[in-house]
Amino acid sequence: MQTEQNSCRHLLVGQSGGPTAVINSSLAGIIEEAGLHPESFDKVIGMVNGIAGYLDGDKIDLSLLSTEDRQLLKTTPAAYLGSCRFQLPNNYKDEVYERLFDKFEEDKVGAVLYIGGNDSMDTVDKLTRAGISRGSDICFIGVCKTIDNDLCLTDHTPGYGSAAKYVASAVRQMVLDSEVYKVDSVLIIEIMGRQAGWLTASSALARKFVGDNPALIYLPEVDFDIDDMTRKVKDLLKQRHTVCVCVSEGIHDAGGRLVCEMSRDMHTDTFGHKQLAGCGKVLETEIRNRLGVKVRSVELNTPQRASAVEASLTDVDEAFGCGRKGVELAIAGESGLMVGIRRVSSQPYLIEYTGVPVNQVCNQDRNFPVEWITDGGCNISDRFLTYARPLIQGESRPPFENGLPTFLYRDISHDKL
Amino acid sequence: MQTEQNSCRHLLVGQSGGPTAVINSSLAGIIEEAGLHPESFDKVIGMVNGIAGYLDGDKIDLSLLSTEDRQLLKTTPAAYLGSCRFQLPNNYKDEVYERLFDKFEEDKVGAVLYIGGNDSMDTVDKLTRAGISRGSDICFIGVCKTIDNDLCLTDHTPGYGSAAKYVASAVRQMVLDSEVYKVDSVLIIEIMGRQAGWLTASSALARKFVGDNPALIYLPEVDFDIDDMTRKVKDLLKQRHTVCVCVSEGIHDAGGRLVCEMSRDMHTDTFGHKQLAGCGKVLETEIRNRLGVKVRSVELNTPQRASAVEASLTDVDEAFGCGRKGVELAIAGESGLMVGIRRVSSQPYLIEYTGVPVNQVCNQDRNFPVEWITDGGCNISDRFLTYARPLIQGESRPPFENGLPTFLYRDISHDKL
Repeated sequence: MQTEQNSCRHLLVGQSGGPTAVINSSLAGIIEEAGLHPESFDKVIGMVNGIAGYLDGDKIDLSLLSTEDRQLLKTTPAAYLGSCRFQLPNNYKDEVYERLFDKFEEDKVGAVLYIGGNDSMDTVDKLTRAGISRGSDICFIGVCKTIDNDLCLTDHTPGYGSAAKYVASAVRQMVLDSEVYKVDSVLIIEIMGRQAGWLTASSALARKFVGDNPALIYLPEVDFDIDDMTRKVKDLLKQRHTVCVCVSEGIHDAGGRLVCEMSRDMHTDTFGHKQLAGCGKVLETEIRNRLGVKVRSVELNTPQRASAVEASLTDVDEAFGCGRKGVELAIAGESGLMVGIRRVSSQPYLIEYTGVPVNQVCNQDRNFPVEWITDGGCNISDRFLTYARPLIQGESRPPFENGLPTFLYRDISHDKL
Repeated sequence: MQTEQNSCRHLLVGQSGGPTAVINSSLAGIIEEAGLHPESFDKVIGMVNGIAGYLDGDKIDLSLLSTEDRQLLKTTPAAYLGSCRFQLPNNYKDEVYERLFDKFEEDKVGAVLYIGGNDSMDTVDKLTRAGISRGSDICFIGVCKTIDNDLCLTDHTPGYGSAAKYVASAVRQMVLDSEVYKVDSVLIIEIMGRQAGWLTASSALARKFVGDNPALIYLPEVDFDIDDMTRKVKDLLKQRHTVCVCVSEGIHDAGGRLVCEMSRDMHTDTFGHKQLAGCGKVLETEIRNRLGVKVRSVELNTPQRASAVEASLTDVDEAFGCGRKGVELAIAGESGLMVGIRRVSSQPYLIEYTGVPVNQVCNQDRNFPVEWITDGGCNISDRFLTYARPLIQGESRPPFENGLPTFLYRDISHDKL
């Protein structure tokens, strides 16, 4: 897409997949950057509830947001535009593409920016291919986000830094809480992460001194052996009263059987992913029965990804920067790219935004490097700490009103009326 | 205790029961105020792990803390001195009292301040009576704390404001997170509170506009009827996609049967309290089976009481003030009192610290007023909001270092060596 062709064309943006604390910061970056280039885009249209909502005609004019609203958007968690879990068909001749490209034309769309994780990058890839097959000049750009940090071709993903900061801070505070009694006890903390252990690994950042809890950290990248863990906990209890164990929700035994599968409830989401819950609870019961000590399990749950109050300023700023970069790429006529982050150096921490081929990103996972998993599978290498520490620097805070954080709300009261 | 008798006598202080985000602020207040009165106390001794640890000879000299340490203590969660769950016997002739008062004499103790909840006030009461029966001139003062807000003769308790602020903020952010999909779904949030619904009620503060979630709030002060709740959720889902329900862990049916008793695991703590867990999980399964919609349950768990990062500045300051008041009462020769908070007015918010008879506080609960429970048991009156709002005002924050909150640590590495 050349600049001269873009006059009077609109930028269309959507959010998709699970929310993070900073996905709206990327949206704010997109609106900001597009606003600086009226020669390219004279309006930013938001898909409401992603591509699925847009197909139903649900959209809003984001250019109408005031400066204050855009500022507030930057520190609002969840997804301001709403989200969806919707998979486009593989066949580019499917009528859904027909309808979509008709709508794009109707809305004078010059570029589509889609903020999301792995599944959303699949959408960007398919739209790109469908566009090519139609001879469309619309640019399709993905802006990555996921607390799981499991996308390829990027040093890390916006959303991860804030979730990692939340996890490390919560673990540090829960450890202090659990150590107040001079009684043998085990604290098991279950952290999000089905296939990738990045977020659980961030619990290692919580340690303040050598030997500090969490004493054991288990990621899904290696097989989990409950007998071995029990032995380790028992040994640790000879030296200390409180043992904190952090586990990924997706840990599994050598046979691939998920620890949480010993629990009653299992569900599957739209994409066929197993909805996990409760490996912490399963381990709590097991350790209590085996060792006869006090055990508490805590599932960190939604606050991990929803807590804008404890977000990383680095993450908020980078999410914003990724959004801006997405617009830059579109203005340069690029398509089929995802905005990635390249680390130039760790000390001092320096990054640059890049455009990477979205088809090399989607439907692939980037797991936690097994060489960073130490002590026979129950600990994390210092190399990870060097990697992760820059990502949690700085404290972003939404404005507080009457004692509580205040956010930007989209009116959803008519969604069902 | 007269001032002239106090020279060369020490102040002994302990912490007991479950931690809160601000129990250390009370300790800091005690150290600060005692330091201002060298004519009364020349040293502050800390019981390590409460009365139980002190009986084992475990104590530290808190006068050695630097100004920086004391400042850091004010924003450190959990219990710096460690805690215990230990019930003194009813018989004041029991040898445990003999040993305790011998130690008090040995340590030149002029006053004992004990920071804790209901069970800790029982300890203060028993020590007072045992002291009287021995003709001791030692002052025994309780400094209240509990996130449950269920102590009598005080407008509220330190610890509650921060927990309420955390709950309201977390609920507001989780609601935003849960509303991103245009899919019928129910979010059930389980909040601490066995007998008292104060903390769960604070979820009402999360609402930003009329009709905002949480749509339903259930406290343990009224009987819970799952059929009625199911009907209400079903009705609400006709008007909106997302229904958030906040429940106290201690909700029960008309027969007194706890909702969580449908869950497998039940344990009892030292004081014979039932350890509850999982009413949210029970309701999640029930609602999913009955209505066939997407349901997620979140147990807020330990972070509710451990999160100093999101503490209320009002609460931190009042906890500090309660500590100082405790020292003032002891200097005035008072004994058998608990420091309480009296609200002079709500608008403007104005309180004063009082001394109330500890024997009228201990072993009694102050439940949430049933007249503040509305809509047939599923909502909270605005009168509660007027009561609670002042308590969550202001943001207290520990210092951050390298992206994470930093706290004051007592060396516990030798506890077991």
